[in-house]
Amino acid sequence: MSIQLAPEYVRAIAPYQAGKPIAEVAREFGLDEASIVKLASNENPLGMPASAKLAMQQAMAELGRYPDANGFELKAAIGAKYDVPQSWITLGNGSNDILEIAAHAFVQPGQSVVYAQYGFLVYALATQAVGARAIEVPAKDFGHDLAAMAEAITEDTRLVYLANPNNPTGTFVSAAELEAFLKAVPAHVVVVLDEAYNEYLAAEQQYESTQWVRTYPNLVVSRTMSKAYGLAGLRVGFAIAQPAVTDLMNRIRQPFNVNSLAQAAAIAALNDKAFLQQSAEVNAAGYRQLITAFDELGLTYVPSFGNFVLVQVGTDDAAGARVNLALLKKGIIVRPVANYGLPQWLRISIGLPEENAAFIAALKSVLA
Amino acid sequence: MSIQLAPEYVRAIAPYQAGKPIAEVAREFGLDEASIVKLASNENPLGMPASAKLAMQQAMAELGRYPDANGFELKAAIGAKYDVPQSWITLGNGSNDILEIAAHAFVQPGQSVVYAQYGFLVYALATQAVGARAIEVPAKDFGHDLAAMAEAITEDTRLVYLANPNNPTGTFVSAAELEAFLKAVPAHVVVVLDEAYNEYLAAEQQYESTQWVRTYPNLVVSRTMSKAYGLAGLRVGFAIAQPAVTDLMNRIRQPFNVNSLAQAAAIAALNDKAFLQQSAEVNAAGYRQLITAFDELGLTYVPSFGNFVLVQVGTDDAAGARVNLALLKKGIIVRPVANYGLPQWLRISIGLPEENAAFIAALKSVLA
Repeated sequence: MSIQLAPEYVRAIAPYQAGKPIAEVAREFGLDEASIVKLASNENPLGMPASAKLAMQQAMAELGRYPDANGFELKAAIGAKYDVPQSWITLGNGSNDILEIAAHAFVQPGQSVVYAQYGFLVYALATQAVGARAIEVPAKDFGHDLAAMAEAITEDTRLVYLANPNNPTGTFVSAAELEAFLKAVPAHVVVVLDEAYNEYLAAEQQYESTQWVRTYPNLVVSRTMSKAYGLAGLRVGFAIAQPAVTDLMNRIRQPFNVNSLAQAAAIAALNDKAFLQQSAEVNAAGYRQLITAFDELGLTYVPSFGNFVLVQVGTDDAAGARVNLALLKKGIIVRPVANYGLPQWLRISIGLPEENAAFIAALKSVLA
Repeated sequence: MSIQLAPEYVRAIAPYQAGKPIAEVAREFGLDEASIVKLASNENPLGMPASAKLAMQQAMAELGRYPDANGFELKAAIGAKYDVPQSWITLGNGSNDILEIAAHAFVQPGQSVVYAQYGFLVYALATQAVGARAIEVPAKDFGHDLAAMAEAITEDTRLVYLANPNNPTGTFVSAAELEAFLKAVPAHVVVVLDEAYNEYLAAEQQYESTQWVRTYPNLVVSRTMSKAYGLAGLRVGFAIAQPAVTDLMNRIRQPFNVNSLAQAAAIAALNDKAFLQQSAEVNAAGYRQLITAFDELGLTYVPSFGNFVLVQVGTDDAAGARVNLALLKKGIIVRPVANYGLPQWLRISIGLPEENAAFIAALKSVLA
């Protein structure tokens, strides 16, 4: 029977559990879709920018054609924005695709991949999918312990995944700490710096990682347009790295991984500074709204640099699941994180003021 | 230096060369985009169905959200159309994604994959990407030699790719031949039956492969919506197989591989029988138009069951490249197939009557 002959490392994979879609919760709990608040997937509560919608409308005439496999126009827009040549850019079907492409391009079965405890689950999945050994480095205060991660690298390590800010904890490491880590990493290891939440950082935290690739030949900077840019439904991510690394990643990349409408919308969104600014402002206000409520409720949370907050909703290991179910019944979708080893916690994506308020009201009622 | 440490099988990959986009040819040859005819990528010359456009317009409001990772509504539509439960369906970012998922799910480095000479190039790329050994079986009259393919399977073979109709040659094997092959394949081998062009088959050639999966636990039927359904720009494909096989493929599948608009458009297109009918009719008429011209010009072609024709444009090995360049200069994009070992041939996608006529006129002038 063929199934037992599939690679053991594939049979061992438990697929990624995405946030429950609104329609699914409505079906499952008999709720009206319009009444449901979803704060579960770190999406942009503003939706997508109007500029991107307009660009898609204009691109609709040509959908019988394959997308541009080289993404000429989109790479030109990314290259202009981040000041890198097109040969330094890899397009991804979301940054999820970038993370997987890196594993397939650089790691063979039996080699190892380093990432942190509480790192994004896709790091573990991508590691498993290539039959590699995971070296999970214990977190420090819910964040990356970079010194320990550098120490953990072995002769057979080929890849390090490093998220900044980190999801689902929201922690942040400074530019100086990051650069010290990059200097410590040996040349046989590729570092994927996953900056999905980069655009939410305050001005004083920003750093020029897209220029660091000029200095560090083994650095891959990964970005997504699913968060601050508001294009989660369209699947656009990209990586910036030196041409030799980019060339290898493009050998693994599926030629039509980013579809035509997504390419058109992404070009518009990249240039929509006003929308990005508004996204960051809505997020900062929503963060204050949530942590004020958590403080009032006496709940512990991890200070967050992303568009979500990790909050402890109880002191027993059933707390996360229990509070999550109670919230679901009230039409509030958040993210349980027991699969990250955090069964007492929930991850709340920051929504619009009224969405945050609905969540806070429901949470107060559930915890009362 | 990290690059030399990337897997040797990854460094050996030559990335897929897609058909040149119209904009690229316009830039390269200084032509007006509106004057260019593209018959290079086996796209639907009717574009996408109006029904799919409408469905996308309605889905646009929610693009800030992630797509439904389980594709509930789309799988329901596929299940209804092909009479299979949702647990038998794997969604792909085009069938390219299905082909790669199968390789990653079932094949380890050092094992082997069987496919035919003149098989779709992605079979070779997917085989290389997992570090497997390719067993390429010589073609018979440009098509699959199924007896030889069954013979070629070894102990370490885990996957067979089999296209019907085959791209780029357009050949077809009958249902009876296919079933005999499936019966001959040992249980340790998964057969991916790639039916990207299935919807162009005449009624008397059709067969119920989507029901064969009930009989053959190692059969994966792969379909695309990029051809007759006219959604190439959106990237939707799917596989139908028994739940055990489907489960393994879904462990490898990226959760958001099919974007929200693509899911919405695909549901509409699946149910648009009139468009599918029109696509098949336009294709049949265009095929007659092309082969009539080839007969007049005394050119050899391979009788085709797809939406393209493979035609021999010369008897020296520079003929394909020479005629292709001359056609490009006249604003006609077709597909050279030297990379398939067919340097004297070109593959012409079947277009609208006026597109076919423009190609025929250009070809006559080039060959004169």
